[in-house]
Amino acid sequence: MRITVEAVTGLPEVREGDDLAALIAARCPLGAGDVLVVAHKVVSKAEGRVVALASVEPSARARELAEPWEKDPRQVEVVLRESAEVLRAERGVLISRTRHGFVCANAGVDASNAGGADEVVLLPLDPDASARRLRAALPGRPAVVVTDSFGRAWRHGQVDVAIGIAGLAPLEDWRGLPDAVGRPMRASWVAIADEAAAAADLVRTKDGGVPAAVVRGLGRHVQEADGPGAGALLRPPDEDLFA
Amino acid sequence: MRITVEAVTGLPEVREGDDLAALIAARCPLGAGDVLVVAHKVVSKAEGRVVALASVEPSARARELAEPWEKDPRQVEVVLRESAEVLRAERGVLISRTRHGFVCANAGVDASNAGGADEVVLLPLDPDASARRLRAALPGRPAVVVTDSFGRAWRHGQVDVAIGIAGLAPLEDWRGLPDAVGRPMRASWVAIADEAAAAADLVRTKDGGVPAAVVRGLGRHVQEADGPGAGALLRPPDEDLFA
Repeated sequence: MRITVEAVTGLPEVREGDDLAALIAARCPLGAGDVLVVAHKVVSKAEGRVVALASVEPSARARELAEPWEKDPRQVEVVLRESAEVLRAERGVLISRTRHGFVCANAGVDASNAGGADEVVLLPLDPDASARRLRAALPGRPAVVVTDSFGRAWRHGQVDVAIGIAGLAPLEDWRGLPDAVGRPMRASWVAIADEAAAAADLVRTKDGGVPAAVVRGLGRHVQEADGPGAGALLRPPDEDLFA
Repeated sequence: MRITVEAVTGLPEVREGDDLAALIAARCPLGAGDVLVVAHKVVSKAEGRVVALASVEPSARARELAEPWEKDPRQVEVVLRESAEVLRAERGVLISRTRHGFVCANAGVDASNAGGADEVVLLPLDPDASARRLRAALPGRPAVVVTDSFGRAWRHGQVDVAIGIAGLAPLEDWRGLPDAVGRPMRASWVAIADEAAAAADLVRTKDGGVPAAVVRGLGRHVQEADGPGAGALLRPPDEDLFA
């Protein structure tokens, strides 16, 4: 078995209302078994999920959280608005559960590469819907994964994970199937979409110049139906053993 | 930019004392810029990190933890011995910090694919040293990543992560470098070795039949020196914001 991961290069700076599917399709051939992996930032920008900080009035809580760390209280305010629940507030970083259910730093609100020095980019309102729309608009109808870079418990650095999915099985379930010696496998529930997101990140650069990549060779996980989306990857808080 | 990930197929069942480097080298060409990714299980088996449960006398604590979940108390005993600290014990799963510092389910002790129905496979004693030994023994001296499948906080499923590394930069640091609009990037510290582990897992199968893969195209992260190893990926408990 073999996969290839290829960067989609030459994309222009994306702005609200841009036809992201057309911009991508013009730069790489896409087939039905392919998986297009796109950093949420360009999806969010095309969808207008950008906030000018000049328009934000920080709350007292935002000022209080921002002050000791010399953070911009307007940016902290945006993070609070995007958060369903703040799990940690330490050293200038908020770890929160977004309204979608993702647990990540600063509710996915990102300042860098935003196109203007006083703008922040939010996560898409509904990243699964974003992935479905992109899929429907792309020639060849590849599977689509929308990603963000998440920090992890206990480990340094970030890895890209799937926050929106259309047409790719989020998980592959080997649990209970016999292994090579005929014994049922216990802990073999593979987060395929997260691994595809991570693989795609290996051909990207973090300065924002390469927001998309195509993974080829994952056809066995690509399906006609858009499927359950990235919501299937969310572990309900009360089932969590790790956090 | 482009990477390929190719499964190393046809490996026999590995046993203690087997020359894993020779077995792998006979089945795929390897070059200096390549990254060989190997599931720890075959590394552990070659190193004899296998325990016959018949030889294990469970402690009172192991019996107590095993009983409500109908687990084998001898297996729980092995998990306790491999754990520096047990963080959670719920629903028959122990989440522990191994003596290496990894936080994972059951201290990485694995029953499936062990080659015998009453054996369990442990993590290598020093997975970085295992990776270095493999690298030194492989023609072409590719980088080597030893992996395990870890569950994650807040997300379903497992992804493969690096537990031993030789010759691959574990992390790529973009923090503080200017992004596409000249603004310093804040949260851009990429866990390259974990992403390579995840990418390799996409061409594997969980029945134990494909324990290794070669990632090509990551030459910019491959270095002459073996480097700091997977220890560089461990976040000290007191710095953890996520857990």
